[in-house]
Amino acid sequence: MTTAARPPGPPSSPLGLHRVIEPRGVLPQAAWRLDADPAIGPDEVRVRVDRLNLDAASYRQLHQAYAGDPDKIRAAVGEIIASRGKMQNPVTGSGGMLTGTVEEAGPRSPLGLRPGQRIATLVSLTLTPLAIHDSLARWDGRSEQVPCQGHAILFARSIAAVLPDDLPVPLSLAVLDVCGAPALTRRVVQPGSVAVIIGAAGKSGSLSAAAARQAGAAKIIGVVPTGTEAAWLQETALADEVVVADARDPVGLADAVEAAGGPADVTVVCVDVPGCEGGAILATRQGGTVIFFSMATSFSSAALGAEGLAADVTMLVGNGYVPGHAELALGLLRDTPGLRALFERRISHEGGQP
Amino acid sequence: MTTAARPPGPPSSPLGLHRVIEPRGVLPQAAWRLDADPAIGPDEVRVRVDRLNLDAASYRQLHQAYAGDPDKIRAAVGEIIASRGKMQNPVTGSGGMLTGTVEEAGPRSPLGLRPGQRIATLVSLTLTPLAIHDSLARWDGRSEQVPCQGHAILFARSIAAVLPDDLPVPLSLAVLDVCGAPALTRRVVQPGSVAVIIGAAGKSGSLSAAAARQAGAAKIIGVVPTGTEAAWLQETALADEVVVADARDPVGLADAVEAAGGPADVTVVCVDVPGCEGGAILATRQGGTVIFFSMATSFSSAALGAEGLAADVTMLVGNGYVPGHAELALGLLRDTPGLRALFERRISHEGGQP
Repeated sequence: MTTAARPPGPPSSPLGLHRVIEPRGVLPQAAWRLDADPAIGPDEVRVRVDRLNLDAASYRQLHQAYAGDPDKIRAAVGEIIASRGKMQNPVTGSGGMLTGTVEEAGPRSPLGLRPGQRIATLVSLTLTPLAIHDSLARWDGRSEQVPCQGHAILFARSIAAVLPDDLPVPLSLAVLDVCGAPALTRRVVQPGSVAVIIGAAGKSGSLSAAAARQAGAAKIIGVVPTGTEAAWLQETALADEVVVADARDPVGLADAVEAAGGPADVTVVCVDVPGCEGGAILATRQGGTVIFFSMATSFSSAALGAEGLAADVTMLVGNGYVPGHAELALGLLRDTPGLRALFERRISHEGGQP
Repeated sequence: MTTAARPPGPPSSPLGLHRVIEPRGVLPQAAWRLDADPAIGPDEVRVRVDRLNLDAASYRQLHQAYAGDPDKIRAAVGEIIASRGKMQNPVTGSGGMLTGTVEEAGPRSPLGLRPGQRIATLVSLTLTPLAIHDSLARWDGRSEQVPCQGHAILFARSIAAVLPDDLPVPLSLAVLDVCGAPALTRRVVQPGSVAVIIGAAGKSGSLSAAAARQAGAAKIIGVVPTGTEAAWLQETALADEVVVADARDPVGLADAVEAAGGPADVTVVCVDVPGCEGGAILATRQGGTVIFFSMATSFSSAALGAEGLAADVTMLVGNGYVPGHAELALGLLRDTPGLRALFERRISHEGGQP
C-alpha cells in the first residue's frame, strides 16, 4: 500500500467533495460514484477494513431480490462497491458501517487517529470511499455481517470511534450506534430538573437516563410499555420512578408522568413507534424541552401537535452527532451500575448482532 | 343565548377534555365528537362565529367527493359539524380556522378576551367545539370561505388573536397564519449574529427576517429561488444580502451563503419544498442552530443529514405557538418598511384569500 500523499488535484474538502466522481458537485452521500484511491490527502485517513455491517434494510432488499441465494448476494454487494466506490444499496439508498484498523493518517487530519488503532465508523457507508481486495471471499452471504479485506477513506469531517480494549466489540458497537442520544441529553438537561425518558429500558433510552443522571437531574422518570421492561428497569438505578404507559396515548401518558412527579423539564423520546409526539409534548411543562430521537417521529405531528396544545415547548431534532459522543456513551456504560446488564440483555434479545 | 355558567359536571380541563364525548379520554383533536353546548365553564370563552376558513385540503376533498355540487358540499359540511360538534373533515382529518366576536368570557379564562372583540382562532377547527345556527344558508359552497352564524368554544389553552382595527382582515389573517415563525426566530437569534433566512421573500420568511433584525442580528442573508423574488426582497431593507440559490443543493447553497458573509449562526427554513435539510445544515456554522418551519421537512433527513456531515448544529422543530406570537408578528408588519408591501403582493398572487 502506498504511503505517498495524494497527488495534486482539486483541493481536499473536509466533506470529501474532492472524492466525488459522478455527478460532480454533490455531497458524497448523494453521489453515484466515489474515488476510493488509497492514496490519501493530508487531512484524510485510510483504514484497513475487516468487516462491513450492512444496514438491515439493505440486506433485506438484497436477500429478497436474489431469493436468498448467498452467492448472488455476495456478487451483488461486490459489484455495488466496485462500481460505486462505496457500499450504498441503489434500491434502499442505505449503507451501514465498518470496522477496521487505521493504516495511515494524514498530517492534517483532525480526527486524532493513529495507525494501528481499531475503529468503527460512525458515519454511513453511503458516503465512505471503499474498495474490497478479497472479492468478499470470506463472507457467506447469509447475514449483514461481512468479514472482508479492503480499505476505506475517512475525511476531515468523518466520524470514527476507537473501539475500546475493555469491552466486547458487539457491546461497543451497540453503544456507538445510539451514542448521539445520551450526548444531547447530557447537554440539554440542567441540574435539578425533572427528566422523562420515554423508552427508558431500551438502548438509547437507558443511555439517555444515565446521561440525565450525570447532568444532575433531580428526578428521572422512566416510561416503558410493559411490565417486563419495567422489571428490567427497576433492577437498575437508572430511573427514580418507573411508569408503565402507552406513549401513543397523550392524556394517559401525561397523567402517569404527572402522578410520578412530572411534568418534565426535559422529555427524551427514544421509542421507534409512530404517534408519540403529542404525549411527549403534553408530558412536558410550558417552557420545557422535548428531544425526539425516534426515527418514527413525524415532523408535522410535532409541529402541529404543539400548536394545537398551545404548548410552548422547545422541540429538538435528535442530532446523531455531538462532539465527544462516543467517549461519553462508552464511559456511561462503564460507570453506570446496571446499564451494561440492560444492554447485554437487549443485544441477546435482538440476536444476530456482531 | 344563555349566559349561565355550565352546570357541574366533569371538572373543566384547560385542554377541553371535558368537552370530549366520544371516545372518552382522548384529546379534542382526536375525538370523533365534541360537546358544543353554548353554556361555558369558568375558564372557557364563547365566540359568535361569522366565518369559517376551511383548510384547503379539506375543501378540495369535499369538492371532488361531490363533483363540485355546491348544495351537496354545503350539506356535507353542515352534517359534519352537526354530527361531530366540530369541523373536522373525516377523510382529510383537517379543519381550518374561524373568525368571530367574543360573546362571553368565563371569569377564570386566561385568554384575556373581552366581549365584543373581533378575533381569529389560531388553533385548528379540528379541536374547537362548534355549532351552526343558520344551516350555512349564506355560503355558496364554492370556496373555502364560509360565511355563517354559529358559536364556538375556546378552552383555557386555546389560542386566539384579536383582529386589529388598523389592518384589513385578509392581511391580518395572512400574518397570523405564520406568526409562530417570527416569534421563534426572535427568541433564538442573538445580537450580533448572522441569520440566514431560506425563503426570505415569502410570508413566514419575510416576517422571520424582520424578527431577526429586531433581535439584533448583525447580518441577515436572504435566500430566494428566483431573480423575481430577489428583486422583491431587494426593494425592502429586510436582508443585508440577497442570494439566489436552490435550497435543495447543499453545496451550492452553502457556497453562496459563505460568499455572502456566512456561515449562519442561525438558519431559518421557510420554504415548503422537500429536500432543504442538508443545505440548511451545511450553511450553518458548527455550534449554530437551524429552525425548520417548513412542513415539508423530513425528520429523518434532518437527523441523518447532520450526522452524515458531522454537523454539531441544534435543530429545532418550528413550533407554531410561542406566547405573544400574534402581537409580535402584527407589530413587525406595522413597523418594518417594505414588509407590508411584500405581504400584499403575496396575498394578491395567491388569490382567493379571505
